[in-house]
Amino acid sequence: MNLDVKAMMNRKSAVVAKLTGGIASLMKARQVEVIKGKGTVCGPDMVKVGASRELKAPKIVLATGSLPSELTHLPFDGKRVLNSTDALSLTKVPKSLAVIGAGAVGLELGSVWSRLGAEVTVIEAMKQVIPGADAAAARTLASSLKKQGLGILTGATVESAKVSSRKISLSIRKSGKKQGQKEQGELENLDVEKVLVAVGRRANINSALGAGINPERTADGRFLKVDENYTTSVPGLFAIGDLVGNPMLAHKAEEEALALAALFAGEAHPPWCGPVPGIVYTEPELAWAGESEESLKASGMDYIKGQFSYGANARALAAEAGEGFVKLLSSPGDEKLLGAVILGRGASELIAEAVSVMAMGGCAEDIALTIHGHPTLSEITKEAALVLSGRPLHRA
Amino acid sequence: MNLDVKAMMNRKSAVVAKLTGGIASLMKARQVEVIKGKGTVCGPDMVKVGASRELKAPKIVLATGSLPSELTHLPFDGKRVLNSTDALSLTKVPKSLAVIGAGAVGLELGSVWSRLGAEVTVIEAMKQVIPGADAAAARTLASSLKKQGLGILTGATVESAKVSSRKISLSIRKSGKKQGQKEQGELENLDVEKVLVAVGRRANINSALGAGINPERTADGRFLKVDENYTTSVPGLFAIGDLVGNPMLAHKAEEEALALAALFAGEAHPPWCGPVPGIVYTEPELAWAGESEESLKASGMDYIKGQFSYGANARALAAEAGEGFVKLLSSPGDEKLLGAVILGRGASELIAEAVSVMAMGGCAEDIALTIHGHPTLSEITKEAALVLSGRPLHRA
Repeated sequence: MNLDVKAMMNRKSAVVAKLTGGIASLMKARQVEVIKGKGTVCGPDMVKVGASRELKAPKIVLATGSLPSELTHLPFDGKRVLNSTDALSLTKVPKSLAVIGAGAVGLELGSVWSRLGAEVTVIEAMKQVIPGADAAAARTLASSLKKQGLGILTGATVESAKVSSRKISLSIRKSGKKQGQKEQGELENLDVEKVLVAVGRRANINSALGAGINPERTADGRFLKVDENYTTSVPGLFAIGDLVGNPMLAHKAEEEALALAALFAGEAHPPWCGPVPGIVYTEPELAWAGESEESLKASGMDYIKGQFSYGANARALAAEAGEGFVKLLSSPGDEKLLGAVILGRGASELIAEAVSVMAMGGCAEDIALTIHGHPTLSEITKEAALVLSGRPLHRA
Repeated sequence: MNLDVKAMMNRKSAVVAKLTGGIASLMKARQVEVIKGKGTVCGPDMVKVGASRELKAPKIVLATGSLPSELTHLPFDGKRVLNSTDALSLTKVPKSLAVIGAGAVGLELGSVWSRLGAEVTVIEAMKQVIPGADAAAARTLASSLKKQGLGILTGATVESAKVSSRKISLSIRKSGKKQGQKEQGELENLDVEKVLVAVGRRANINSALGAGINPERTADGRFLKVDENYTTSVPGLFAIGDLVGNPMLAHKAEEEALALAALFAGEAHPPWCGPVPGIVYTEPELAWAGESEESLKASGMDYIKGQFSYGANARALAAEAGEGFVKLLSSPGDEKLLGAVILGRGASELIAEAVSVMAMGGCAEDIALTIHGHPTLSEITKEAALVLSGRPLHRA
């Protein structure tokens, strides 16, 4: 079997073109003029496009998103030291690839190129992949990806890098703590053809701000400070999306855009509610929303949990997708659903039910007493809710 | 590429064995004795197993399910005139297969064997496939399956059949109404190797009832009559599942079993609530729950609807699954969600969110204002809810 990377990329471009073309048509249908060019806010009600064109508007919305964070000792060159966009457009499979950072971007793109034949090593400074996600799910995900051939080093940092004409040499410091060694772990060398730097993103604040336009930042300086109506400290200047805070996710930015548009229109648009789901598009997928065991412990809140395994679900077994679990977290008294973690096939879609129930202020019992089609993966969520409610069904 | 039907069936058997083995372990863990044999209720508190063994119990639960309905002019023979169980165990792909009945069983098994190479013709007496399901979804599903090579005749009945040593000849009467002909349509002959009769199932009432045990039937005689506690007219005799009414679905039977077990245990187990989802496991899948446009029209209820297409969803396009739609139905005043229909990839899993929201008495807005991960298919449900609420997003 041969892999035609060019055909794959052409197909990707065609899908992207169709989607962006669809947005362009909608803009036109709604009589929104789209001007292509670099915009700069040069006054509270003035945007300059390119060198000459000036647009006057009483309200200006900044939505310039975020940019991949760069490592000072390994600056992006677009060819061998890659950001996520570069890594989506390679024209052939690299022989070897180091991925710095085991967040969503690192694991997704790392596992894609690994599956396509590259020897991939993901290097993560924290003790777990997907830092911040449920620790047990992250462990299971890492172990599953390793079984599929992805190299993963956690608790490891790239101390230095040397880019030469033939290769990139990374000097990786492993944490020695776990083995009971001194804090300083071993130093390991890794030579690779390409490096994907996926150590996070930073709000793209400055690119659209002209001289003298200095909206206030958040305390840590990383985001623009806005109030609940997305208003910055500059009159008439609003901001949404990655610019104004975490999580840096398209669906969170979209909801902020909807809420702001409704405000502008003077509509009684209730604000969106419920948690923002996080998704990692690996196989198995990881999705979560609301509180995690870690966040509840950190804030000293009591909780009860219910967990059920993919391995005991009919559809998962029939689809050879028995790896993973659903974990639901509730407050002990009223069983109000506080959080959900799903690791496994289809997690990205299954999380929607838990998010909607949380948004409605529902309880584990609301899921436990609702009929779920058989055979479906959604029964795993129901069974986890039954476990939480003290009525396990297909679990001893 | 070669198809190894035997390997496929072995794998199927292994999965089934694992699942039934799991149930057996759970029974053991919960100290439930399972006695294998044919049980007959021979008194209000007495079950006979086989010829000799007698079990005394103050409470007896009938859960004997249903049997495939037979056609008098085409009785099952297990080899060439098949029921659904037979059609799951063929050892090679038939050259040609007629499927009588385009319900879930007929379309699922018909499309499986069609995909594996058989020339399959599905014959349905009603005007649409999946009678009772949303008419527009059924039309789109039929057209999609036809494009995949499945033959489908609607408004057609098998008038007679002749089983000879070499073939089965069906005489099919097509409805002439649509073409403006007289009511009596053309007669067409179809010769096939095998026939799957999938014209429905009937409650398996009598097989476990001994002489003199005659619990009352429903008015139409098709089911056992039970009250809200699953009690039949015979003291101490209970019944659940396909025996007591439609829909004949495993997940409905399971919920009834849970409710009855809780009643027996004297537990305050609230009854399950919300609609029972129906699912057709074709590709695309069809899933629905609650009211349909047809049922609302029939009962004279006003409704509003919101529909959104898979073709405008990023993940669907990326997965080449742009066929299908989500349709949500609400009452006009409070937008209370009354029904949902999903045709498309993953419909069986996506329906869970709508069912849970309906079970909680939620509104379309509860889905519209909840963040759905991007890119996911669940965004189609959200967009349909936005359309229903008069705030279409990615639709002109």
